[in-house]
Amino acid sequence: MDTYEKIIGLAKRRGFLWNSFELYGGTAGFYDYGPLGAMLKRRIEDIWRDIYVIEEGFYEIETPTIGIEPIFVASGHTRGFSDPMTVCSECDHAFRADHLIEGIVETPDALPASEIKRLIDENRIKCPNCGGVGTFGEVSSFNLMFRTAIGPGAERVGYLRPETAQGMFINFENLFRFYREKLPFGVTQIGKAYRNEISPRQGVIRLREFTQAEAEIFISPHDKTHPNFSSVADTLLRYYPASHQENDGGTIELATRDAVGQGIVAHEFLAYHLVLTHLFLVRVGVDPARLRFRQHQPDEMAHYAVDCWDAEVLTDRFGWVEIVGIADRTDYDLSAHAAHSGRDLSAILEYETPKQVERIIVTPDMSVIGPRYKEKAGKVLNALKNLTEEELNGDLINVSVDGATIAIPRDMIKYEAVTEEVRGEKVIPHVIEPSFGIDRIIYAVIEHSFAEEVVDEEPRNVLRLPAEVAPVQVAVLPLLTREELIEPAREIVRTLRRAGVFVTYDDSGTIGRRYRRNDEIGTPFSVTIDYDTLEEDTVTIRDRDSMAQIRVPIRELSERIYEMIRNSGFCDG
Amino acid sequence: MDTYEKIIGLAKRRGFLWNSFELYGGTAGFYDYGPLGAMLKRRIEDIWRDIYVIEEGFYEIETPTIGIEPIFVASGHTRGFSDPMTVCSECDHAFRADHLIEGIVETPDALPASEIKRLIDENRIKCPNCGGVGTFGEVSSFNLMFRTAIGPGAERVGYLRPETAQGMFINFENLFRFYREKLPFGVTQIGKAYRNEISPRQGVIRLREFTQAEAEIFISPHDKTHPNFSSVADTLLRYYPASHQENDGGTIELATRDAVGQGIVAHEFLAYHLVLTHLFLVRVGVDPARLRFRQHQPDEMAHYAVDCWDAEVLTDRFGWVEIVGIADRTDYDLSAHAAHSGRDLSAILEYETPKQVERIIVTPDMSVIGPRYKEKAGKVLNALKNLTEEELNGDLINVSVDGATIAIPRDMIKYEAVTEEVRGEKVIPHVIEPSFGIDRIIYAVIEHSFAEEVVDEEPRNVLRLPAEVAPVQVAVLPLLTREELIEPAREIVRTLRRAGVFVTYDDSGTIGRRYRRNDEIGTPFSVTIDYDTLEEDTVTIRDRDSMAQIRVPIRELSERIYEMIRNSGFCDG
Repeated sequence: MDTYEKIIGLAKRRGFLWNSFELYGGTAGFYDYGPLGAMLKRRIEDIWRDIYVIEEGFYEIETPTIGIEPIFVASGHTRGFSDPMTVCSECDHAFRADHLIEGIVETPDALPASEIKRLIDENRIKCPNCGGVGTFGEVSSFNLMFRTAIGPGAERVGYLRPETAQGMFINFENLFRFYREKLPFGVTQIGKAYRNEISPRQGVIRLREFTQAEAEIFISPHDKTHPNFSSVADTLLRYYPASHQENDGGTIELATRDAVGQGIVAHEFLAYHLVLTHLFLVRVGVDPARLRFRQHQPDEMAHYAVDCWDAEVLTDRFGWVEIVGIADRTDYDLSAHAAHSGRDLSAILEYETPKQVERIIVTPDMSVIGPRYKEKAGKVLNALKNLTEEELNGDLINVSVDGATIAIPRDMIKYEAVTEEVRGEKVIPHVIEPSFGIDRIIYAVIEHSFAEEVVDEEPRNVLRLPAEVAPVQVAVLPLLTREELIEPAREIVRTLRRAGVFVTYDDSGTIGRRYRRNDEIGTPFSVTIDYDTLEEDTVTIRDRDSMAQIRVPIRELSERIYEMIRNSGFCDG
Repeated sequence: MDTYEKIIGLAKRRGFLWNSFELYGGTAGFYDYGPLGAMLKRRIEDIWRDIYVIEEGFYEIETPTIGIEPIFVASGHTRGFSDPMTVCSECDHAFRADHLIEGIVETPDALPASEIKRLIDENRIKCPNCGGVGTFGEVSSFNLMFRTAIGPGAERVGYLRPETAQGMFINFENLFRFYREKLPFGVTQIGKAYRNEISPRQGVIRLREFTQAEAEIFISPHDKTHPNFSSVADTLLRYYPASHQENDGGTIELATRDAVGQGIVAHEFLAYHLVLTHLFLVRVGVDPARLRFRQHQPDEMAHYAVDCWDAEVLTDRFGWVEIVGIADRTDYDLSAHAAHSGRDLSAILEYETPKQVERIIVTPDMSVIGPRYKEKAGKVLNALKNLTEEELNGDLINVSVDGATIAIPRDMIKYEAVTEEVRGEKVIPHVIEPSFGIDRIIYAVIEHSFAEEVVDEEPRNVLRLPAEVAPVQVAVLPLLTREELIEPAREIVRTLRRAGVFVTYDDSGTIGRRYRRNDEIGTPFSVTIDYDTLEEDTVTIRDRDSMAQIRVPIRELSERIYEMIRNSGFCDG
C-alpha cells in the first residue's frame, strides 16, 4: 500500500473525501468533501481570503459557473482547450490518445494528432479496454468544456467555465470603475471550475469539477515594480529555473532580491507573488522541504506570457505536482475581449502633470465646398478634418476621396492650432495571475501532514495539520462514561462553541482510543474532564504532536485554546 | 422609479450586483456579485454556518454541482422538475405557457397543459414578442435541469443539480457511519444550484444559477420532539397558517409553545427550525416587521410532506416573496434512493435495553428428505425454513413448492425455539429540511435596510445593514488630503487590517461626500484622522445610523471597533 492509498483510505474512512455518486456506482473525476474535508477546505480558503482579500485588499467577486459562448470564443477556449482523443472501433471506448503512447516518446502531449496516430499504429498499441490491436480510429480534438443549452432550444449555448478568471476579465469595466480608474488593482474569486476529461486517472489530482482560487491583478505595462517588495526581498524560496531544467541543474535557494537581481524571475511584481504563494502554502500545511517553484520552459509557456512559474509539491505517488500557477499574462486577455466585444478595455495612466498637446482644428468654408463638390462634399469635409498641420501646408491641399485625390485650394478652408490638455497615456493593463488549485493543495496538505508512528508499542496515525486548518479544533473527552463527568464535559462543549471554536464531544471507548481517533483526523487539542475537574475546576489539555498534557482552569480555557490555535501549538505556562 | 429600480441602481453603481456577461450583451437569469455584494454574501453565509454548523453541530459537506442521471431519476426531477412551455410558430420565441394566461385564471400554474392551451386559444392570446394571434403551438413540458454530457460521447448524461439536497441524501450511508449510526444528526451544504428557466423575469428574484444553503436533519420517525425546544418556546413568530389563507384570516403572532400546542405547526422539531430561521434572518438584516411564516396549503404541499412552511419577506415590487422553505419531508427521499439503488438506507433505533425475541430454527432430516423429494429437495428445504411456529404444528406440514402444495410428515423435521437479542427497530429516518435561497435573502436584506433621508437639507441614501454583515466594516478617512494626515491614516488602515477588520481608505472629495458614499454602501463606522490626531493620538469614530461621533485613543481603536461590530452599533464611553 503506497502513501496515496493510505491517505485516500484514511480520508474515506474518517470523512474527508468520498467518491461521488457511490450509491449509483460513481463516476471518475468527481469527489465529495465529507464533513472533515469540507471543514478543512473552508479553513484553507479562509486563510487565502485573509491574505489576498483582507491584507492585499483584492476584493472578491462571484460570477456564474455557466458562461455564454462569446466569452470562450474570445478567450480561445472553444478552439484551444482540448485533448487528443481516439476511440477503439472494437469496444467503442474513448481514450486520451497521447496517454496511449506514454513511454514511447518523452513528451507525447506535445505531438500533433497525426503524429500520435502514426505512433499508435507503428507500435501496434493494444486497446487497454478490449485488447484489440489496430482498432484505434483517427486522433481528433476533444473540447474539454462541459456544454449545455441555456433556456429552451439549442440556440443559446452555455459552457461550464474552465477557469474562474474569465468572469473577472469580462468585468474589467465594472471593476475599473469600482476602483476609481486607478492602477494597479486586484480582484479575486474562489469557485468551481470544470474540465470534462476524456478519461480521468490520478484520483483526486485530476478532477472534472474542482475549486480554483484566482487573483487577477491589473497593473501598468510600464511599471512592474512592487510597492512592498522590500518586505519580501530577504525571503528565501526554492527555485527551479527553466535553464536548470534543460541540463538538470537542480533547484537553487535564493533570496527574492537576488532572484530578481539575477534575472531569474522577470520582475518584482511576479517575485512578490511567488513569495505570497509560498507563505500561504506553508501556513496551511504544505511541507516547505517538498515545495519548489518551477519556471515554465519557453516552449510550454503561453506565447503571450512574459514569465510563468508553478508552485509544485512532491507527492509519493505522482512525484512533483503543480498546485499553483503564477503568470504575467501581459495584455492578452483584455486585448482579446476588447477585440471580440468591440469595447475599449483600456486605462488611462495619468501623467504627474497633464501634458499640453497641440492639435489642429480645421473649419472648411462649406458655403464654397458644398456647391463645388456637391454629393462628395461630406466626404471631402471628413478627409480635411483628419489632416495634420504639415499636410495643410501649401496652396493646394490633397485629400483622398473614394480612392481619388482631390486638390482643394488653400483659401477654401480655415484652420487653427489649439492646445489641449492630455491627462495621461492610454494603455491596456497587464495582468498578473496567481491561480491556485484548491483540491490539490488539500491533498498535498493531508499527505505532507500524515505520519505513522509507534507510541508505547502501539501504532498511531497522526495528521500534523496546523491548528488553524484542522477541521476539529478541540475534542472534549470525559475520562470515563459516567454521568458526573459527562455533564460538565457537555457544559464545556457549549462554552467553547459559543466562543466560536469548533468542538466535538466523544465518550465512547477508552481514553487512549479516543486520543488516537482524534490524532488521525488532526485534532490539535483534546480537553479531558476527570475527577479533579469536579474538585478543582480544571481540565487537561493534550497536545496532538507532543502528546504533552497541561492542566488549565476552566475559566481560562477558551482564551488558552484561542491562543494555541493562533500559535498553532502548545503554549506552556 | 420604484424601490426595486432604486435598489438595483444602487447595487450596480456601487458594486453589489452586476448583470452577468454584459460585455457580450448579457443573458437573463444570471447576476454577478460585485466586490461589495460578494463580501455581503460571504458574511451572510458565515453567519449561517455559525448557527447551523458550529452551534447546531450539523457538519457541512461539499458535493459536485454536476450529478449523474440515476440520482435525478430517483429524486423525481427528470419527470417532475418542469414548467409548461409553448412556442410561437411565427417568431419561434418560447414562453412559459402559464404566464401567458395570467390574469385570466387565478392559479394558471396549477392547470394541466391541455387546459392552458385551451385558454390561450379561447382568449386569443397575442404573442408578446411578435404580436401574432393563434400562433402558439401545443403546450409541452420543459425540464428545468441544465443537461450536459460527462466525458466524450453522449452516453453519460449529467445534470447541473437543481438543489444541493440530493448530494446529502445519496451520502446517507457515509454520513450515518460518520455520526456513529445514531439519530438524530444533521448535515449542511452551501453551494450553487441551477434552474434552466424558460424565460426568467423578476431580475434577481428568479435566477438560473443561484446559491442555496440547506440543512438535512435525519430524525427518528417516532420522535419529533426537540431537545432544545424549551430554549425557543417563548419566542414569538408571525404565522400565516393554511386555514387563515383560505378565508384571508391574516397572520397571527404566537409563542412557539402555543403554535405547537394549538396544532398549527406539526411538531416541536419543525417549530424549533422555524425559530432558528427567524433568528438567522433578523440577525442578517431582514426587517422582522416584513417577515412572516406561511404554511403550505394542502394542495401545494408535496404529497409526502407532513407540514411545510415558507419564510416570506415583503418586498416593494414583488409583494411577499419566499426566501426559505422548512419542511418535514418524511422518509420520501431516502426511500426513493433505497428503492432505486437497491441499498438499505435504514437506521437502527436502539431499544433502551435489547429485546429478547423468540425465533424458530428448523432442522430438516436431509437423509430422508433428499431421497424422497429428489430434485425438489432444495426447494422443500427453503420452504420449511420460512415457516412460523404455528405452521409447524400438526402431523402433516404443508409447504408450497413451484405452486403445488406438498404435505410433509412431521417426523421428517426437527425444530427448536431459540431466543435472540434484537438491538433495536429498523426505520427509514425522516428528514427535516430548512432550505435557504441566499440570493433572495441578500436582495431582501438590501431592500429592508435601504433608506432615503434628508440630512441638513441634503439627501442621503443609507443602507442600515447590521455591522456584522456590512461589506466594508470601517472607512478610514483623513480629514484633508494632506501628507501629514494621509500617512497616519494609512498606518491605521494597516493596523486594522492586521486585526482582521475589512477596511477601506478614502481621501478623495470633501469629508461630507465621503461619509455619504460610505452611508450608501452601509459602512457602519468611519474613522477620521484630523489635526488633533497628530497631537493627541486620538481619532473620531462616526456611526452611520445616528451620525454621532466619538473620540477614541488610537491604541484602543481595534478593540473598540471589534466591540461595535459585535454589538452592531455604537458603544459610547
